Amino acid sequence: MAIEDYKQFVFAFLAAVSFGLISIIFVLTWVLHYREGLAWDGGAAEFNWHPVLIVVGFVFLQGIAIIVYRLPWTWKCSKLIMKFAHAGLHLLAFILAVIAFVAVFDFHNAAKIPNMYSLHSWLGLSALLLYSLQLVLGIGLYLIPVAPVQWRAAFMPLHVYSGLFIFTAVIATALMGLTEKLIFALNNPKYKDSPPEGTFVNVLGLLLVAFGALILWIATRPHWKRPSEQALLSLLSSSEDSAQGQGGPAPPRPADGLAGEGAEDLRRRSTKQSDMDD
Amino acid sequence: MAIEDYKQFVFAFLAAVSFGLISIIFVLTWVLHYREGLAWDGGAAEFNWHPVLIVVGFVFLQGIAIIVYRLPWTWKCSKLIMKFAHAGLHLLAFILAVIAFVAVFDFHNAAKIPNMYSLHSWLGLSALLLYSLQLVLGIGLYLIPVAPVQWRAAFMPLHVYSGLFIFTAVIATALMGLTEKLIFALNNPKYKDSPPEGTFVNVLGLLLVAFGALILWIATRPHWKRPSEQALLSLLSSSEDSAQGQGGPAPPRPADGLAGEGAEDLRRRSTKQSDMDD
Repeated sequence: MAIEDYKQFVFAFLAAVSFGLISIIFVLTWVLHYREGLAWDGGAAEFNWHPVLIVVGFVFLQGIAIIVYRLPWTWKCSKLIMKFAHAGLHLLAFILAVIAFVAVFDFHNAAKIPNMYSLHSWLGLSALLLYSLQLVLGIGLYLIPVAPVQWRAAFMPLHVYSGLFIFTAVIATALMGLTEKLIFALNNPKYKDSPPEGTFVNVLGLLLVAFGALILWIATRPHWKRPSEQALLSLLSSSEDSAQGQGGPAPPRPADGLAGEGAEDLRRRSTKQSDMDD
Repeated sequence: MAIEDYKQFVFAFLAAVSFGLISIIFVLTWVLHYREGLAWDGGAAEFNWHPVLIVVGFVFLQGIAIIVYRLPWTWKCSKLIMKFAHAGLHLLAFILAVIAFVAVFDFHNAAKIPNMYSLHSWLGLSALLLYSLQLVLGIGLYLIPVAPVQWRAAFMPLHVYSGLFIFTAVIATALMGLTEKLIFALNNPKYKDSPPEGTFVNVLGLLLVAFGALILWIATRPHWKRPSEQALLSLLSSSEDSAQGQGGPAPPRPADGLAGEGAEDLRRRSTKQSDMDD
């Protein structure tokens, strides 16, 4: 990666992380300062785990999981280790999202509020189900070394697209959730009278949008992609010949059966180019 | 484009258009059957123009405008004509969106409801302002032949990303608007009691998501991109040599000063590739 490109990447990444962390501070301030705090008692304080865990898990951790391959300082790690980081962060995000869902169902049941009537709940549950499917297919195809290389390559564009789509849908659903909660919870003054809490949570919504926008920007810059294993191999063998002799890290092996997407990727790209030229 | 690829494109395009048109039927049915109909009287029937024009203009027309270059049956048209189609559809979408905003401000003012207090309104107005900026920059850079070729090329990734980002933000904002309206308008039975109108509008929300998902899928498949002017030129000159002699359409000229992004695009791609290989 050229140095100018590297600087731009680091700037975008730090901005994304900052917006994500400020979002977490905002959602915690919301439930601890403006609302009933956090507890697991079937009441409003249990509901509050819902926005907190969604922002921490389903938004922030999912976003970081999406771009984890793009961090240039991880390119020395083997593809397999990065796959575990990618899958592990997504799994953690999934677990936190599930607890967030349990919190809201518990709260509804205790308060005799119906479940699953709103567009927010429909989209949120759909996103969670799609996310679990994405996790199972992702692990089955790319982490366990059984799927044929052709399947892996054929499914990759859908895996990438679905990941970005689910992430975007989660943020949209979170914005709907903030809207619902402000309308239901604010009384005297109401949401329409712009009390401080209303404005504060609106800003939280903007922060989530900014975080999402930056993650999508980082994830879709082709020149910020982790180089193929072949390119990394030649890079490392030319620059680290001496380090190897002194016990430095071994370069990733393209033939380890789990890191073969790089080659497949290149092959597919050249196929597509010739399709277009036909 | 290979025949199999062509079939897949046509399927995705027809599915997108179908979801878009069904969304329009749904929003019209909502305001005409379940709500107060359409009028320009400062009342609820004027408000109803807001969701109708947002769905028709800011969602459907914007979506079609985004993918208009990708329709293979337009590849015989010059790039300049397609630029006018792209910009014209976006301009129409913008005008309808502005009228939709006027409708809701009029309604609020007549009913003494505050404006711009909700996250929905903040995001909606931001999206409209960004859309107007995108239109002005897009016309200034790509339609009026004054901007240097380097500027055009350098700005293109941001133009594409912003376009998809604004489109996505508009759909997210529309979903928040549906949520708000159902909570405010449904009483006895309320939204939480799942009356037919609540379920009907929830389905409208899912249709908008499906439309958006398909437009984003079509817009981000690299092999469905309109070929560069050079590739088209060689295609047309080999397959339409006889048609030329019989007064058939002239192939697009890559040197017309308005269709030069194709070449620039290719140059940039090879630069990026070498960056990655460095």
